[in-house]
Amino acid sequence: MFDPVEKLKEYVRHASVSADPQFKEGMVGAQKLVSGLLKEIGFAVEVVPTALHPVIVAKHGDNPAWPHVIIYGHYDVQPPDPLEKWHTPPFEPTIKGERMYGRGTADNKGPLMVHIAAVGRLLEKNPSLPLRITFVVEGEEEIGSKNFKTFLLANKEKLRGDFVFLSDTGIPNADQMVVTVGLRGLLAFEVELTGPQSDLHSGMHGGVLMNPLQGLAEFCASLHTPDGRVNIPGFYDDVIEPQPWEREQLATLGLKESEYAAFLGIKEFHTPPGYTPFEAIRFLPTLEFNGFSGGYQGEGTKTVIPSKARVKITCRLVPNQTPDGMKNKIFDAVRARCPKGLKMVITEQHHATPYVAIPPDRSNTPKDQSPVLARGFRALDKAVTAVWGRPPLYLREGGSVGLIADLKEVLGIDAVMPGLFLPEDNLHAPNESFHLGVMKKGIEMSERMLTELAK
Amino acid sequence: MFDPVEKLKEYVRHASVSADPQFKEGMVGAQKLVSGLLKEIGFAVEVVPTALHPVIVAKHGDNPAWPHVIIYGHYDVQPPDPLEKWHTPPFEPTIKGERMYGRGTADNKGPLMVHIAAVGRLLEKNPSLPLRITFVVEGEEEIGSKNFKTFLLANKEKLRGDFVFLSDTGIPNADQMVVTVGLRGLLAFEVELTGPQSDLHSGMHGGVLMNPLQGLAEFCASLHTPDGRVNIPGFYDDVIEPQPWEREQLATLGLKESEYAAFLGIKEFHTPPGYTPFEAIRFLPTLEFNGFSGGYQGEGTKTVIPSKARVKITCRLVPNQTPDGMKNKIFDAVRARCPKGLKMVITEQHHATPYVAIPPDRSNTPKDQSPVLARGFRALDKAVTAVWGRPPLYLREGGSVGLIADLKEVLGIDAVMPGLFLPEDNLHAPNESFHLGVMKKGIEMSERMLTELAK
Repeated sequence: MFDPVEKLKEYVRHASVSADPQFKEGMVGAQKLVSGLLKEIGFAVEVVPTALHPVIVAKHGDNPAWPHVIIYGHYDVQPPDPLEKWHTPPFEPTIKGERMYGRGTADNKGPLMVHIAAVGRLLEKNPSLPLRITFVVEGEEEIGSKNFKTFLLANKEKLRGDFVFLSDTGIPNADQMVVTVGLRGLLAFEVELTGPQSDLHSGMHGGVLMNPLQGLAEFCASLHTPDGRVNIPGFYDDVIEPQPWEREQLATLGLKESEYAAFLGIKEFHTPPGYTPFEAIRFLPTLEFNGFSGGYQGEGTKTVIPSKARVKITCRLVPNQTPDGMKNKIFDAVRARCPKGLKMVITEQHHATPYVAIPPDRSNTPKDQSPVLARGFRALDKAVTAVWGRPPLYLREGGSVGLIADLKEVLGIDAVMPGLFLPEDNLHAPNESFHLGVMKKGIEMSERMLTELAK
Repeated sequence: MFDPVEKLKEYVRHASVSADPQFKEGMVGAQKLVSGLLKEIGFAVEVVPTALHPVIVAKHGDNPAWPHVIIYGHYDVQPPDPLEKWHTPPFEPTIKGERMYGRGTADNKGPLMVHIAAVGRLLEKNPSLPLRITFVVEGEEEIGSKNFKTFLLANKEKLRGDFVFLSDTGIPNADQMVVTVGLRGLLAFEVELTGPQSDLHSGMHGGVLMNPLQGLAEFCASLHTPDGRVNIPGFYDDVIEPQPWEREQLATLGLKESEYAAFLGIKEFHTPPGYTPFEAIRFLPTLEFNGFSGGYQGEGTKTVIPSKARVKITCRLVPNQTPDGMKNKIFDAVRARCPKGLKMVITEQHHATPYVAIPPDRSNTPKDQSPVLARGFRALDKAVTAVWGRPPLYLREGGSVGLIADLKEVLGIDAVMPGLFLPEDNLHAPNESFHLGVMKKGIEMSERMLTELAK
């Protein structure tokens, strides 16, 4: 068997940034590494092209009577900027203490390596394990899994599994496993405001026209109320209040606001009334600005009135909101607030439907679930209890994994999601890292869970 | 005599962007070209070092009985970005029709070339012209002439002239000369807002804290009122109303709002009540945003809450405002509006005192002026009338040339400023160009003016 830590290092060296065409080589390198590794542990690998980055599909086991688990991961990573904030080079994995630093170590290269290593170990011990396993590893998760739904529709039959098993969510600390039972959805768009047809000298023309940056500020400032709510009509209409058991699990988790504030490095929280920060990130929708641009941003000054100003916005959605319904409400409000004298263009980017699937034994509202899914949830509970010494908590998460909703919609299957990254892993930020102790426990958990399921 | 158009091409090829250390080579090249040219036409050239880019001082004539004109110019240019908007490479001068395109052609390489060529011609015809001329050509005008005042203080004696003669201002069209008798001042600063200590994932943490970009929008939106005025207490307190003769000259100029709007490519103006756009840019102070930055600005999306957001701001000041007085009012208001939960850092950049000097024959409020300055204004009036076929207009301008106030303060001398660039020259913007017909007339005007002054 390969050494999962060494192999992860090699994997992280491939700079697989899906958002930026400059990283094409890293994308191909990461894809080939994963394909090669899956072949090595005995899988039949197929690299399925899409309109952009291909999906790896790798199969093992063919007896239709065996349970069929789809293991999902993604080989793409977030852009590494701002580069100057990294203490070690983002694509040169560096181990310090219990952690490996590098872009993608936690999201999602480390967790995927956990499951590949677990399956590798399992098949080495028992090559005729009565379990069908299909790995599906895509290359566009960080850009909203744009072509994943098309891929699913075209490959429906080979992906007809019992449930999806994946680790692309978090846990509060290395000693407490959390199984994610819900994810926020997403709606991403960009707004561009245009004033004069060309950049202008602010001395010659300053004071006679609406500066697009000023318009952008006024427009963006209008989108929240001072109490921290999103100021768009109907924004909260379809939000389902969290259920009592959900608040209980969260209370069991025992998170401390003071510790969270210290971790974030902020003096105070800014949440809508009636919600703790821990509830707000799980149960409420948001509208966040992810980037402003316009005018001069270099060293020194430039006395310019720019022709254009832009903002990148993402909204997180929660059950029962739909991306389409929210898009209509949000875009209507955005259009109505185009500042006087400016032209506005809204560019829709990707979106993801919010998701929720409650394990059968924990929910107050049991749903009809496939027996194999129920067995999967139970097998995981058992494996977690054995490895971590206590059962997992079942919680909704603030992040979005849009493909989970796609898998549900296209294949009709739910997801079993044990988390593997910690708050201090710095996902999507400089100095991302992965905890090697969690990695080790994760491999054992995954191996035990799949062994149990195969029984 | 050298060919001024060919020589200007050579000059523009040196990419002399003073704001960016990457353009060091272009700065040195431009400085050497000007120094060489002034030597070629018979000047004793000295390159005086400063803390950043050196100043060229070139002298001709040494009889203390002769009038002494200081001719000012600058060899640095604005940054060329956004590069993708240029139709021809910014540092590869290209002649199309009557214009030469390239960064710095109009600001200030062409106009400086005009005066060097005029002096060259004059001295070729009459090497013993009874006139002392000193060229002072700096390399930091586009970054606020940071070290110019220090330079002036250290070189006071050699710069003891009767007045400064320069062209770094505009005219409305190729057929109407305007002499600039006032300039707006400037106060440049940057505001940085910091929220969390590191960039955060907007899924994991979105909705619990004040996003620095949201804070920036709310802060910036607070700085103007809906009617187009600056929303800072006392901002307009010291503004002097324009004098009747100033409004008359502006009326004679006969600018049309519809043409100006079409030139800018805007649907409507946004000026404070009681001022036309043409008055607003000359007689009122402003607060303009020159650049926003923060978060992800690349292709696609990145679901990040940035740690920091920044805005670059410049205020234009008018007589009787002072940079120090205004700085106190503005910074007090800015500090008071630091959004809740964020840290604010204000970085002061450069500033310039507003300036006004009225020619003796045109003003309703004659001032004590040196007799040589009065002769200079009259010589220019005569030269303009001969070359343009009509006398110049005397107007205040919206732009800032901070060194003019420095020259006044340190050397006690005023400035005579015939404009040479046209509204369509795109100063500080992509596709900057200089009108070669204006260049030709300018050389003749400058030659005649100096000849007249030497009489």
